[in-house]
Amino acid sequence: MKQDDRAIGIFDSGLGGLTILKEVHALLPRENLIYFGDTAHVPYGSKSKETVTEYSLNIARFLESKKVKLIIIACNTASALALSAVKKHTKAPVLGVISPGAKCAVNKNKGGKVAVLGTEATVKSKAYVKEIAKLDKKTEVKQYACPLFVPVIEEGILNGELLDLVINKYLAPLKKMKPAAVILGCTHYPVIKKHISRILGGKTLLVDSAEETAKEAKKLLTEKGLLKQNGKGKIEIYASDSPARFSKLAVNIIGGKKPKVKENRFYI
Amino acid sequence: MKQDDRAIGIFDSGLGGLTILKEVHALLPRENLIYFGDTAHVPYGSKSKETVTEYSLNIARFLESKKVKLIIIACNTASALALSAVKKHTKAPVLGVISPGAKCAVNKNKGGKVAVLGTEATVKSKAYVKEIAKLDKKTEVKQYACPLFVPVIEEGILNGELLDLVINKYLAPLKKMKPAAVILGCTHYPVIKKHISRILGGKTLLVDSAEETAKEAKKLLTEKGLLKQNGKGKIEIYASDSPARFSKLAVNIIGGKKPKVKENRFYI
Repeated sequence: MKQDDRAIGIFDSGLGGLTILKEVHALLPRENLIYFGDTAHVPYGSKSKETVTEYSLNIARFLESKKVKLIIIACNTASALALSAVKKHTKAPVLGVISPGAKCAVNKNKGGKVAVLGTEATVKSKAYVKEIAKLDKKTEVKQYACPLFVPVIEEGILNGELLDLVINKYLAPLKKMKPAAVILGCTHYPVIKKHISRILGGKTLLVDSAEETAKEAKKLLTEKGLLKQNGKGKIEIYASDSPARFSKLAVNIIGGKKPKVKENRFYI
Repeated sequence: MKQDDRAIGIFDSGLGGLTILKEVHALLPRENLIYFGDTAHVPYGSKSKETVTEYSLNIARFLESKKVKLIIIACNTASALALSAVKKHTKAPVLGVISPGAKCAVNKNKGGKVAVLGTEATVKSKAYVKEIAKLDKKTEVKQYACPLFVPVIEEGILNGELLDLVINKYLAPLKKMKPAAVILGCTHYPVIKKHISRILGGKTLLVDSAEETAKEAKKLLTEKGLLKQNGKGKIEIYASDSPARFSKLAVNIIGGKKPKVKENRFYI
């Protein structure tokens, strides 16, 4: 059987994409993974298409220098704004997180209402609305920007009154809409999934793009014959700024011990 | 009398420094002001000294190209991490926000306890602790990082239960410390000053670096004979990303109508 030891490159503006790294590692434990968190420019969610594209292309170049066999844009904002630019400038196949999440929401919920929770930039791009329309024109989609979710999660507020107030603030309009599925359209959000579910009432399907993207990555590598068949996968993590802080906060996202994080600066 | 029409350059990572622009304009209404908000890299508060210095030097170069007669670093994080580097590379005099705030806290409160509220990076730099020690060794200083204040203010949450919970979260240890003065060590914080004061109990002196820095700027320009003596000052605002968003959010900081904001990109 064909064997491909090259790593999968995964990147995000910061920590959130680690939820995807975790799922990919769980599903494909033999694969070597290289993660890049762009902490010198985090967050992307409030920035423009031009700026997010510039940052994403720089990271893709870095990952290509590491000879990756697949690039996963583990960030909804960068997937929404920069996927086509990264695909155009990159030889390796590129996977975003929008399409897997949209597919799941539509397949499990044909014709029903779908709500998308995301950053300001993801909502403004209408990426999920367009992607869902391609799959099923009948699905009604509404988007809700939730700018406080990321800072609250990065501050380690993972339960309690303050978190509930913030969730309630953004979910109040969803209670009227009564969607059949809610897409967690930012890689940080799965961390507070159970609280979102509880506040929504527990019957709504929550689509976690981390799981869906990991499945899509496995499918793509299998189809192209690019899987690594033997051994245990190694994980390498880079951050463009403050690697020690990144390592400390990573625990809020993926649990466990503080991972080793290398610094790689290439701005200016 | 000598007359100097050149503008005062003021910069911040984003919107917060507008509180300083407002005070400088109120105190020196004849002066032309050029404001630069580095929205392509905001926030600075969670980034490293190297990165914040690089961004600050780029902005200082831009302001010098506009022939400013004074640069005000209207950002506590950049003042704490990059003031000496900017001074070294710039011909115009440079004023940070740390020293004016520290002076005020010490002068009005000799020997008493002082609490500093700031971003992670400002707290880590110990800039206020060092500055206060230079002025008065007896003053006891404690620092508290308040990472959620900036995103909450930028989200327009300027009163109510959620804001109170966030303030209470960070101010709980201050209630035990009972400081005589609290320095609002981030240019965003004056926006929620009355709520901080209410939750502290109303007797504590709150030091607003915006007012103090404006006074210091007036003193410096007067001493150097650099004041503009006639006419009405013009305000020019630049942002390195998303000028329309900047203009919209500026209203949360300085009130009034949406200001005109020009775009100036100079990253990579």
